[in-house]
Amino acid sequence: MSNTAGQVIRCKDWRHDPSVFDICLNQPLIKTAVAWEAGKPLSIEEVEVAPPQAHEVRLKILFTSLCHTDVYFWEAKGQTPLFPRIFGHEAGGIVESVGPGVTDFQPGDQVLPVFTGECGDCSHCKSEESNMCDLLRINTDRGVMLTDGKSRFSIKGKPVYHFVGTSTFSEYTVCHVGSVAKINPAAPLDKVCILSCGVSTGLGAALNVAKPKKGHSVAVFGLGAVGLAAAEGARLSGASRIIGVDLNPIRFNEAKRFGVTEFVNPKDHKKPVQEVIAEMTGGGVDRSIECTGNVQAMISAFECVHDGWGVAVLVGVPNKDDVFKTHPMNLLNERTLKGTFFGNYKPRTDLPGVVEKYMNKELEVEKFITHSVPFTEINKAFDYMLRGEGLRCIIRMGN
Amino acid sequence: MSNTAGQVIRCKDWRHDPSVFDICLNQPLIKTAVAWEAGKPLSIEEVEVAPPQAHEVRLKILFTSLCHTDVYFWEAKGQTPLFPRIFGHEAGGIVESVGPGVTDFQPGDQVLPVFTGECGDCSHCKSEESNMCDLLRINTDRGVMLTDGKSRFSIKGKPVYHFVGTSTFSEYTVCHVGSVAKINPAAPLDKVCILSCGVSTGLGAALNVAKPKKGHSVAVFGLGAVGLAAAEGARLSGASRIIGVDLNPIRFNEAKRFGVTEFVNPKDHKKPVQEVIAEMTGGGVDRSIECTGNVQAMISAFECVHDGWGVAVLVGVPNKDDVFKTHPMNLLNERTLKGTFFGNYKPRTDLPGVVEKYMNKELEVEKFITHSVPFTEINKAFDYMLRGEGLRCIIRMGN
Ligand SMILES: NC(=O)c1ccc[n+]([C@@H]2O[C@H](COP(=O)([O-])OP(=O)(O)OC[C@H]3O[C@@H](n4cnc5c(N)ncnc54)[C@H](O)[C@@H]3O)[C@@H](O)[C@H]2O)c1
Ligand SMILES: NC(=O)c1ccc[n+]([C@@H]2O[C@H](COP(=O)([O-])OP(=O)(O)OC[C@H]3O[C@@H](n4cnc5c(N)ncnc54)[C@H](O)[C@@H]3O)[C@@H](O)[C@H]2O)c1
Ligand SMILES: [Zn+2]
Ligand SMILES: [Zn+2]
Ligand SMILES: [Zn+2]
Ligand SMILES: [Zn+2]
Repeated sequence: MSNTAGQVIRCKDWRHDPSVFDICLNQPLIKTAVAWEAGKPLSIEEVEVAPPQAHEVRLKILFTSLCHTDVYFWEAKGQTPLFPRIFGHEAGGIVESVGPGVTDFQPGDQVLPVFTGECGDCSHCKSEESNMCDLLRINTDRGVMLTDGKSRFSIKGKPVYHFVGTSTFSEYTVCHVGSVAKINPAAPLDKVCILSCGVSTGLGAALNVAKPKKGHSVAVFGLGAVGLAAAEGARLSGASRIIGVDLNPIRFNEAKRFGVTEFVNPKDHKKPVQEVIAEMTGGGVDRSIECTGNVQAMISAFECVHDGWGVAVLVGVPNKDDVFKTHPMNLLNERTLKGTFFGNYKPRTDLPGVVEKYMNKELEVEKFITHSVPFTEINKAFDYMLRGEGLRCIIRMGN
Repeated sequence: MSNTAGQVIRCKDWRHDPSVFDICLNQPLIKTAVAWEAGKPLSIEEVEVAPPQAHEVRLKILFTSLCHTDVYFWEAKGQTPLFPRIFGHEAGGIVESVGPGVTDFQPGDQVLPVFTGECGDCSHCKSEESNMCDLLRINTDRGVMLTDGKSRFSIKGKPVYHFVGTSTFSEYTVCHVGSVAKINPAAPLDKVCILSCGVSTGLGAALNVAKPKKGHSVAVFGLGAVGLAAAEGARLSGASRIIGVDLNPIRFNEAKRFGVTEFVNPKDHKKPVQEVIAEMTGGGVDRSIECTGNVQAMISAFECVHDGWGVAVLVGVPNKDDVFKTHPMNLLNERTLKGTFFGNYKPRTDLPGVVEKYMNKELEVEKFITHSVPFTEINKAFDYMLRGEGLRCIIRMGN
């Protein structure tokens, strides 16, 4: 165990050998990117990170990336505001130290923290079908650790809230052991970090939930990283037509590299997009996957699937007051509507296997990474996403 | 072929030998029960039944029963009115004659007419998953035959509309061959006639769509014949808790004979019934099946299933302007919402097998039959249903 185990850490002392940690003496202090207020640029601050408690591990984050879910809660337009807060939930890192009694992890383990956990004991964890752990499922309104209801972060003695149990926009963070997946130590974290949320979510939405069959047509709503990962999953499943739907035409260029065969911009049509798709496909697509978070797109994604056998899968995170509305006949005509959470992957059990798909070259992740910035320029990642530019921006904690 | 083949029939000449039909001479005329206006008692009238055209068969109906769908379109409160009309779609009969070129049927074949058909050629008929034939799927607004857009019924020279391609409240009727299932000639039509709609619908909703697993909990909304058949299907699948939900407490007594283990009357509770069920079951049932036609019950049936794995199946026929509304998070939390039409049975391919289930004593149909009236007293069947009394009332065409 490292020398910093059990101590509040204030400084960076990572020396590429996880067993060698020293208490800081004239070393750079630990940096975090704090959101003080909704929608205001993050500010890089010095932070103290308390030691992990029972069932917790402290991680050194090496790479993190920005997902739209961070932006939604940072904007806090349709979501509960909770500030000051440390966002970030797509990341890769190394275990720095473990809390009392933790035996599943050791300092030096290479891991992906995940915004939703797996306790292993609840009815969901025991069910083959669910990944919505009762204890550790995503809770966007909780800004503290489960163990003691406190934050592990403080700035000048004042606590700062966590975000979805990960808070990876920080050089160090503390997570519940159930929210951390141990992965192949040979996997390059600057690539596989994006598998800890968006890409796995989209991929799993296709492979585990929509399950298109060979020759099927699939509509993907929203061509961000999540949607393109869903398109990738559809292609891996043998879908022959993949129709990408987005309001932002910039997205269509990127999407060509992901097996999307046709594009529809709802703004180009007077009719509702579900009717446009029904006309293109002789009655509707076999599968659709919604990856926008927009409730109108959710309704269109449902109504554009073929009656008799069509399956629509919702992935996007809606606003608090959104209402999904449809005529019940659309259901009675034998359409299926499902939602998925993290692509139905169980984070600890299944995520290491997704990393292996990358290691075996079944899955390409490089093409999702369009930008990279040093941690000090994290606000640029927000700008790219707000402008709808690029897919994933890697934020390098090291430099 | 019988002597009446190819001729308009005006008289009853059934002699228990289908090959012996005579043109009527001093014989009783053919009776039908006509709905002249929405919501007014049916009136027994003499009718002329034109010969079957290409792709059609003319049937002698022996037994029919009343389903709620007849009542909805007869009341025409939430549905398009189309009068005068001959209702009826749960029935059993014998082929009297076949139209030109029809080779699948012969006079004397024992059959169940079905409100939805199977052409065998369209993408739905070719799909393993769908039973929503493009050509012959239910069309409640069409009151004429597909072949020539005309009615085969006339009273004093004036046409009377068909209903869902069956119009079984008549001693003779004409159907498209795709809407008629040939069944075991030994099956007693006074029993198996109810398999041509409601009972198969509920049974299939459970066995083919909700597919509860051994030990699962299942909520059934609406304890009419359809709901009780769904409960029966849940029991056959090994469900251990079957929670029956109905606003009419009379239904609970009958339901006890159908394996329903617990009862909830939404009127007995201040909370929404989905919350009551979630409390009874530690978070929700594994499966729910809605068999009411009430859109609020549809929403409750969806929201009462467990997150992570719950599946809700809608069966009831909604009103034209109903809107199904729910918060999209209820879907994202990994609930599945499906609708089914005729229990996902393909009418011609699968219905003979359902009849065999009865013949093999796997399925009991007698317990669904609570009343029986002669054809002349058909309005009593409407009264029983409007009062919510009993399950199925057999209408005997013979006497
Ligand atoms: N369910 C989960 O477990 C889970 C996990 C990760 C992300 N998500 C959600 O998935 C969604 C996509 O995430 P992302 O990172 O790819 O975001 P993104 O912003 O990169 O991509 C979203 C895309 O949707 C498009 N869009 C928005 N409204 C649209 C509409 N009405 N019609 C068509 N296109 C529309 C945007 O132009 C954009 O290109 C977000 O809602 C995110 O919160 C869900
Ligand atoms: N999808 C199909 O293929 C198909 C086929 C046949 C029948 N149906 C439909 O199935 C439904 C049931 O048919 P049935 O013949 O059993 O009818 P029914 O009238 O005998 O039974 C319906 C039951 O639902 C109850 N109910 C009504 N509103 C309710 C509510 N809000 N909450 C709880 N219970 C409520 C009634 O009290 C009644 O007991 C009807 O809507 C019918 O049109 C659908
Ligand atoms: Zn994310
Ligand atoms: Zn759990
Ligand atoms: Zn019916
Ligand atoms: Zn067909």
